[in-house]
Amino acid sequence: MAEEVLDIATRKFPSSLVDIGLQLRLAAASHAPRQFSTTPTAQLKDFFPAKETAYIRQTPAAWPHPGYTEEEMLAVVPEHRKAETVSDWLAWKLVRLCRWGTDIATGIRPAQQVDKKNPTTAISAEPLTEAQWLVRFIFLESIAGVPGMVAGMLRHLESLRRLKRDNGWIETLLEESYNERMHLLTFMKMCEPGWFMKTIILGAQGVFFNAVFLSYLISPKITHRFVGYLEEEAVHTYTRCIKEIEEGSLPKWSDPNFQIPDLAVAYWRMPEGKRTMKDLIYYIRADEAVHRGVNHTLSNLNQNEDPNPFVSDYKASATGHKPKPALKPTGYEREEVIG
Amino acid sequence: MAEEVLDIATRKFPSSLVDIGLQLRLAAASHAPRQFSTTPTAQLKDFFPAKETAYIRQTPAAWPHPGYTEEEMLAVVPEHRKAETVSDWLAWKLVRLCRWGTDIATGIRPAQQVDKKNPTTAISAEPLTEAQWLVRFIFLESIAGVPGMVAGMLRHLESLRRLKRDNGWIETLLEESYNERMHLLTFMKMCEPGWFMKTIILGAQGVFFNAVFLSYLISPKITHRFVGYLEEEAVHTYTRCIKEIEEGSLPKWSDPNFQIPDLAVAYWRMPEGKRTMKDLIYYIRADEAVHRGVNHTLSNLNQNEDPNPFVSDYKASATGHKPKPALKPTGYEREEVIG
Ligand SMILES: [Fe+2]
Ligand SMILES: [Fe+2]
Ligand SMILES: [Fe+2]
Ligand SMILES: [Fe+2]
Repeated sequence: MAEEVLDIATRKFPSSLVDIGLQLRLAAASHAPRQFSTTPTAQLKDFFPAKETAYIRQTPAAWPHPGYTEEEMLAVVPEHRKAETVSDWLAWKLVRLCRWGTDIATGIRPAQQVDKKNPTTAISAEPLTEAQWLVRFIFLESIAGVPGMVAGMLRHLESLRRLKRDNGWIETLLEESYNERMHLLTFMKMCEPGWFMKTIILGAQGVFFNAVFLSYLISPKITHRFVGYLEEEAVHTYTRCIKEIEEGSLPKWSDPNFQIPDLAVAYWRMPEGKRTMKDLIYYIRADEAVHRGVNHTLSNLNQNEDPNPFVSDYKASATGHKPKPALKPTGYEREEVIG
Repeated sequence: MAEEVLDIATRKFPSSLVDIGLQLRLAAASHAPRQFSTTPTAQLKDFFPAKETAYIRQTPAAWPHPGYTEEEMLAVVPEHRKAETVSDWLAWKLVRLCRWGTDIATGIRPAQQVDKKNPTTAISAEPLTEAQWLVRFIFLESIAGVPGMVAGMLRHLESLRRLKRDNGWIETLLEESYNERMHLLTFMKMCEPGWFMKTIILGAQGVFFNAVFLSYLISPKITHRFVGYLEEEAVHTYTRCIKEIEEGSLPKWSDPNFQIPDLAVAYWRMPEGKRTMKDLIYYIRADEAVHRGVNHTLSNLNQNEDPNPFVSDYKASATGHKPKPALKPTGYEREEVIG
């Protein structure tokens, strides 16, 4: 049980907006023995449940993680799909606006911001602290779990009321939202945001849920493009974090005694000896690269008629291999997967 | 491909409201060879796609069906959980109101209605026609797919914004909604409702989605009870249909040449020689019995703290067997599965 394994080092840190009531408890240097299981179960118990109960138990992963090879994870790169149409441009600018708001809400100083001309590919800037990273991750992941669920639900409802098939999109969308929620729960095991951040998260979901809901009703194509761009940001964020770990700027996370949550080990089935914070971020970044490739691809498809190329074996069976969205940063063009 | 297998016998039928523009094309007596596959893929192509395309392909089932033994399917009985609290009573009366509206909308004559004192257990009345049954099934299934999706989504969003685990409920709720959609797609392969029924389905989803959304925000407990009662109706409906097939009142469906859609054979992995319409309804009725048992149980639990007993192995591992919701019409009381 992760909550028994982790020692908690409570710590406050100052930052422009973040310090208002924000307490980050960084879980570091814990030495209790870890029970390892090869079963793909996700141990989801809260790190800080409001009330301890005897009833919370492990539940198996709703969607077992497909896994990656090490080469795949290392091959992920931050990249940007050039906006080709007005609606691409709109989606892109919206994402830029979101990132600007996130930087403010999570107290990122100007010196910590990367080159504004290449915001999704440049990764050099003054490093963030572990606490800053965690707040950012938690905020981003609590937002990132929304679009897949909304899109999946709206396609489900449409299939029901129009009496037509869905072509296999729903499950990929729901799985994406589950995967994002696993990212969130993983980081939640490492820290607890204070009331200020929690309030921002509540408000942000209220705004974001309604925006995505409306936007998906109006144009699923633009919404998938928007999510594709959002995932470019996610790949960028985690790439930068990996770089800062490698440079030694995040000593808590490169401490060999730092233990990642058991639920993460179980969910990604991380092999023994490959369970550092950096390994974990590699897995998460690969997930974000999948979302990026998938959403850019879905945006390129005919929303009503085309099958989901990531579950259907249409063109894959002809070419002999399945599409690999993690390694296709700008997504597949329609001709590459359909037709 | 189901759409190549089926011959279509177009036919009109008169009925109080239903005849307004309603054309039911009953798929009967088809002799083309069926390709059988043991893989659990669901062939989801529309029976009557708006536009033929080359891009629609089979997709594997999002949630492979767990299957039933023949004894389990035969053991399902219509039953009613007595309302114990005011909110139970409210949920029950709401379901009665829904059934009353459905009877009117689908043109059920008074002589075709069962004893009003035992509406969910009495099954004797003047038989419906195959066309009436199909309209009823399609209307009911297009509604039935809503609550699981809404509940799953709201619990997902709550987990994200409250930064807490879900305890394994979401997947069961989403799987339920997928299962209902498979029921709908199965019946859609057999007929096409006219514009009148299609309009009713559109309007009904608009009202029902918003009602369930609000109701689940206010009280998930009452909403699960409501769904439990709704599923009692579903078990009742299919039980009565089985009886009418057995009595020979539905000759099209007892015709040995009547073929059920391939997608149904694939989804439920129906064994050869057990693929009549009656067999199909047995499977669907067992699904409804699962929903009934699951939702009555969930309504009995602590919504925030209790794990989902149908995926977690908490009490099951102690007693040595998993809960079987299909054979627990009134659901498990909390003490039976938790604690
Ligand atoms: Fe994520
Ligand atoms: Fe993502
Ligand atoms: Fe159903
Ligand atoms: Fe049902």
